[in-house]
Amino acid sequence: MTPHFADRLTAAIQRKGTPLCVGLDPRWEQLPDEIRGRYQHPLAAASGSKGRPLAAASGAIREFCLRVLDVVAPLVAVVKAQSAFFEACGSWGLVSLKEVLQYARGLGLITILDSKRNDIASTAQAYADAAFGGTLLDGVRQPVWDADAITVNPYLGRDSVEPFLASARKEQRGVFVLVRTSNPGAGLFQDLVCAGRPLYEHVGEAVAAWAKENTGEFGLGDVGAVVGATHPAELARLRGLLPNVLFLIPGYGAQGGSAADSAAGFRPDGTGAIVNSSRGITACFKPTEPRWEAAIETATRQAGDALAKAIIA
Amino acid sequence: MTPHFADRLTAAIQRKGTPLCVGLDPRWEQLPDEIRGRYQHPLAAASGSKGRPLAAASGAIREFCLRVLDVVAPLVAVVKAQSAFFEACGSWGLVSLKEVLQYARGLGLITILDSKRNDIASTAQAYADAAFGGTLLDGVRQPVWDADAITVNPYLGRDSVEPFLASARKEQRGVFVLVRTSNPGAGLFQDLVCAGRPLYEHVGEAVAAWAKENTGEFGLGDVGAVVGATHPAELARLRGLLPNVLFLIPGYGAQGGSAADSAAGFRPDGTGAIVNSSRGITACFKPTEPRWEAAIETATRQAGDALAKAIIA
Repeated sequence: MTPHFADRLTAAIQRKGTPLCVGLDPRWEQLPDEIRGRYQHPLAAASGSKGRPLAAASGAIREFCLRVLDVVAPLVAVVKAQSAFFEACGSWGLVSLKEVLQYARGLGLITILDSKRNDIASTAQAYADAAFGGTLLDGVRQPVWDADAITVNPYLGRDSVEPFLASARKEQRGVFVLVRTSNPGAGLFQDLVCAGRPLYEHVGEAVAAWAKENTGEFGLGDVGAVVGATHPAELARLRGLLPNVLFLIPGYGAQGGSAADSAAGFRPDGTGAIVNSSRGITACFKPTEPRWEAAIETATRQAGDALAKAIIA
Repeated sequence: MTPHFADRLTAAIQRKGTPLCVGLDPRWEQLPDEIRGRYQHPLAAASGSKGRPLAAASGAIREFCLRVLDVVAPLVAVVKAQSAFFEACGSWGLVSLKEVLQYARGLGLITILDSKRNDIASTAQAYADAAFGGTLLDGVRQPVWDADAITVNPYLGRDSVEPFLASARKEQRGVFVLVRTSNPGAGLFQDLVCAGRPLYEHVGEAVAAWAKENTGEFGLGDVGAVVGATHPAELARLRGLLPNVLFLIPGYGAQGGSAADSAAGFRPDGTGAIVNSSRGITACFKPTEPRWEAAIETATRQAGDALAKAIIA
């Protein structure tokens, strides 16, 4: 039987020795020249023909991501694919997204689909089935993204989140709910004070209640919270309030969060969180750099070690 | 020059004589037998082969939506495509989504992509460019969804919404921000009281401020609010608070909102809102009904007339 999502994630992090999650945010303009060069000719040649440049860009993005996965798979337990950059290439981009997720799973990585989906009831169910067990057609499930976890936005409330939990639990997958995000403008609504506490704490408490419904051996639920590294005080406070909730911590590296900032999101035993770095790893090199894979390996090792040390300290 | 989004929408509604928006939420299980029958054989035959059933279902969904568009185009000004049901068929579904949006535009309809997207800064920008002007590759914009408007979720705050506005304004498109949704569990966070007012009113006020930045000849902004018909008291209150904000009102019909409930969302002159019906129109027939297009025509006329009357009354 497949273990509980949080147990699977925690054991994989312990094997790799770091809670670093590598974020795949592939942008055509930031790919290595070595890859762009090979896709640029078909892209330019196709620029008159409808949509074909997006197909060429999707091919380049796919190759880049698969090669990044080869580099990082021995070093980290988990990767996060940002849906927006695949969707930016239309249906071709989503062919690449599916292949990238599948390849990551094949390398033994835990995959997070960062698509921040949200909708009501049966529509949320359609998103959730696509994320996890597959879309039901005439009684047979057809796999779509088949990710280990997905990010969801809580604004629509209870019956928008619960279909994701139900789908996840059928397959021992996980759900990360946005609680306190890492962007400068996040406070506009998240910081509004309701009944003495900021909105994000109310969301955090709802996440804790969902997490309590199904905890694993490490005492962590299968519903986690997205809490940015760029707000270390809130991160520490939420860690204290929500001991059974896995945190997915974005904002490390390029967005300004340090390893020490992120460490506030872990439990005293060093479990309970993963820390994502996207641009800090996959855009750590100059496009002209021929040995970009070596640069990614170094950046991944350094970020992984810095986090591991900050958590122990 | 293309007119302001709200002017274009308002003029089109006045020409058609109804603010009804037809929602396309295509589910394989609810398609007419006549269509399913033609795609079922390839679907069943392909059930052993990876993913092919999703391609067959996407073809069926595409045919259904194009035929619905042929029926409703003379009767309504605007259609809304629910992204979840296309994504449920993976990349094939998104090929169909693009064709459906393109076909709708060709029929002179205004298109809303209901995908409730949300993310931070440059990631929101990628979603926004895909929705409207296209993804930039080596300095050339490549069209992706090319919709007239998109729905967005505001939880991530200012810098998650503003990239959508910037992209929309370059192309005279529109953005509908979730304010008060129509689902039973919506209140979990939306109804929390902050500084004496529910959260959704704070969101509504932010939407009004964005709308004021760019209003058209009818005094309506290019940033609208999604407010459910299932909460008529809140709908009426928000209408009073936000005179310059276009409302997209879901929940009419199958979800329980009546024409009278929806009427509370209009301005005294009968402008300022569109009312969406999805299942009430596109699932108004038994799958065995061979004359399902006639049933859709009747349902569209009835819903459109009921709304037009309720607004005048």
